[in-house]
Amino acid sequence: MITVLAGGVGAARLLRGLVLAVPADRVTAVVNTADDVVLHGLHVSPDLDTVTYTLAEAGNPETGWGLAGETWQAMDALDRFRGPTWFRLGDRDLGTHLYRTGRLAEDAGLTTVTAEITQAWGLKTTLLPMTEDPVTTMVTLDEGEGAGDEVGFQEYFVRLGHSVAVRSVRFAGADAARPGPGVLEALAQADAVVIAPSNPVVSIGPLLAVPGIADALQARRSATVAVSPIVAGKALKGPADRLLRELGHEASVVGVARLYRDLAATLVVDRADADLADAVEAEGVACVVADTVMSSPEVAAQLSLQILGCVGVAT
Amino acid sequence: MITVLAGGVGAARLLRGLVLAVPADRVTAVVNTADDVVLHGLHVSPDLDTVTYTLAEAGNPETGWGLAGETWQAMDALDRFRGPTWFRLGDRDLGTHLYRTGRLAEDAGLTTVTAEITQAWGLKTTLLPMTEDPVTTMVTLDEGEGAGDEVGFQEYFVRLGHSVAVRSVRFAGADAARPGPGVLEALAQADAVVIAPSNPVVSIGPLLAVPGIADALQARRSATVAVSPIVAGKALKGPADRLLRELGHEASVVGVARLYRDLAATLVVDRADADLADAVEAEGVACVVADTVMSSPEVAAQLSLQILGCVGVAT
Repeated sequence: MITVLAGGVGAARLLRGLVLAVPADRVTAVVNTADDVVLHGLHVSPDLDTVTYTLAEAGNPETGWGLAGETWQAMDALDRFRGPTWFRLGDRDLGTHLYRTGRLAEDAGLTTVTAEITQAWGLKTTLLPMTEDPVTTMVTLDEGEGAGDEVGFQEYFVRLGHSVAVRSVRFAGADAARPGPGVLEALAQADAVVIAPSNPVVSIGPLLAVPGIADALQARRSATVAVSPIVAGKALKGPADRLLRELGHEASVVGVARLYRDLAATLVVDRADADLADAVEAEGVACVVADTVMSSPEVAAQLSLQILGCVGVAT
Repeated sequence: MITVLAGGVGAARLLRGLVLAVPADRVTAVVNTADDVVLHGLHVSPDLDTVTYTLAEAGNPETGWGLAGETWQAMDALDRFRGPTWFRLGDRDLGTHLYRTGRLAEDAGLTTVTAEITQAWGLKTTLLPMTEDPVTTMVTLDEGEGAGDEVGFQEYFVRLGHSVAVRSVRFAGADAARPGPGVLEALAQADAVVIAPSNPVVSIGPLLAVPGIADALQARRSATVAVSPIVAGKALKGPADRLLRELGHEASVVGVARLYRDLAATLVVDRADADLADAVEAEGVACVVADTVMSSPEVAAQLSLQILGCVGVAT
C-alpha cells in the first residue's frame, strides 16, 4: 500500500503516474481540505476535485483544474446579479458541488461523500480528506492597499491571482481538528509514504497542522519520500517559490529539505538541481535525482517507479 | 396601486397582461413561498422565479416555468452521482438559486434578495414574498402504496407529477409565520386587490394561512376581484380541479366563489361558465364573465382591464 500526502495539481499529476506504475487500488491519497470554501451555499473542495477529475481522465489538461469540455451558463447567469464572479464554477463541475452539498446536508461525512464521488467516476484509488472538521487557510497580505488584511485562501489564490506578497499564513480551526477517518491508519500501514510535489506551505502545511498527522508521518520517516515542488528555484505552477521566500524559507530544494527533514528520509529533486544534491544530503536527507517535471503520465509513471525504488517497494 | 395575490404560472400570465394595461410600477405581487425548497443546499423559490422570468420575457413559453434557451449540464453531471434528479435545475436557472442562496447566507432577507433579482432583470413590478419565515406545503397522499404518507409539495407536484389522490394539505410553519415586509401595507393601500387564477388550495391557500393576510384581505373585500382558476370544471394547468374535489370542494366556479366569498366581492369567470353566473351570485359574489384563458399577453391585458373595471380603477 502506498499513501500520498496531496494538494491539488502537482499531486494529481503524480497520482496519475503512480496508478500507471502500481495497481490503483494500492494507492491512498490524503488530500488537503483547507482550501475548501462555501460559495453560494455550495461546499467546494478544490483539491479533492482536481485529484478526482485528473484520475478520471476527465480533467481540463490546459488549466490542470476543472473539467474538460466545461460550459459556463450558470456563472454567466449569476453575473447578471452579482457582477463578475471571480471563482468560476463550471456547469458540469456544479454537479459535483451540488451532490457534495446535498449529501453533507444529509449528515454524510466528507470521507463517505468523497468515496461516493470517486466511485461514481470509476476510480479505484482511495481519496481521504485530511479531516472532516473545518480547517481554513487564511492569508495575511503584505503588499499594497490590502497590506495587513487577512483573506481566505481562495481570495488570495484566485481573486488576487496569488500575485501579492504574503506576511503570514495560518490554518484556522486546525488546532481542534481531528484527522479524517482512515488517515492515521493509511500512514501507519503504508509500505511507502509519498509527500507529493505540492505547495509545502498551503497544500502540505494544512495536513501537518492537523494534530496527529505530523506525528504519524514522523513515525514513518524511513518509509517516506518527498518530491520537491521547487525546480531550479521556482515552482512549476503556483506561488510556492514566492510563498517560501516571503515566509522566510529558502526557495530551493535545500529549503524544501529543511522543511521536510524530520518527516521524510528521502527527497527527490529534479535533474536541474543535481548540483544541490550534496547540500540536500547535508541537511540529513537522502537525495535522489530524477525527472520530476511531469509533462506526461508516462514521465509521472517513471518518476513513481523511482520514488518507490527509494524505499524498496516492489511494483 | 394594484396588489395581486400570486402563485406561479397562472399568476405570471395575469401579471404580464396587467403590466401591459397599467404602468408596471403600479403593480405589486404578493407571492407564495410555501413551494420553496432547499435542493442540494440551494434555496429554490419556484413561484417567485416563474413570475420574475415571465415578466422579464425570459421564461420558457412551452413549459410556463424555467428559462428559455436553458441547458442542463449541471443536472446531467449530477445524474452521475445520484441517479435521475426529478427536480431539474437548468444551468441558467442555477445562477438565480446560487445568488439567492449566497445572499440569504449573508443574512439578507428574502424580500431584499427578491428585489435585487427582479431589478437585475429590469422589472419595475414589485414582488413581495408572502413571508420571510419558513412555511412549507405538505401533502398527505391518499392512493396506492404511499397512501397516508406526507410528502413535500415538490415531491407531490414534480416527482409524482401530481397524479395521485390527496387526503389533506397543510402549511407547516404557517402558524408562526409573519407576513413579509410590505405585504400588509400593499393590501391596505391598494386601489384594487386581485386574487390571481392560481391554485386556491396550494398557491393562494398558503398566503391565507399566514396570520394577518386573510384579515387584511377581508378588510378590502369590496376592492378585491378574484379570477377563477377553474374553467368549465377543469384547471387550465395543474391539479387544482382534482385537489378541490379530493379535499371536499366543488371543482367549479361556484366552488371557487364559496372559497373566496369572504375575501372578494367579485369573481371573474370564463365565458365557458357564463351559465353559472347566477349560481356564483347566489353565493353573494358579483360575477363578471370574460375571456380568462390567457393564450397571449394581449388577452391577459384585456382581462386585466376588465378586472380593474370591476372595482372602478382607471387605467
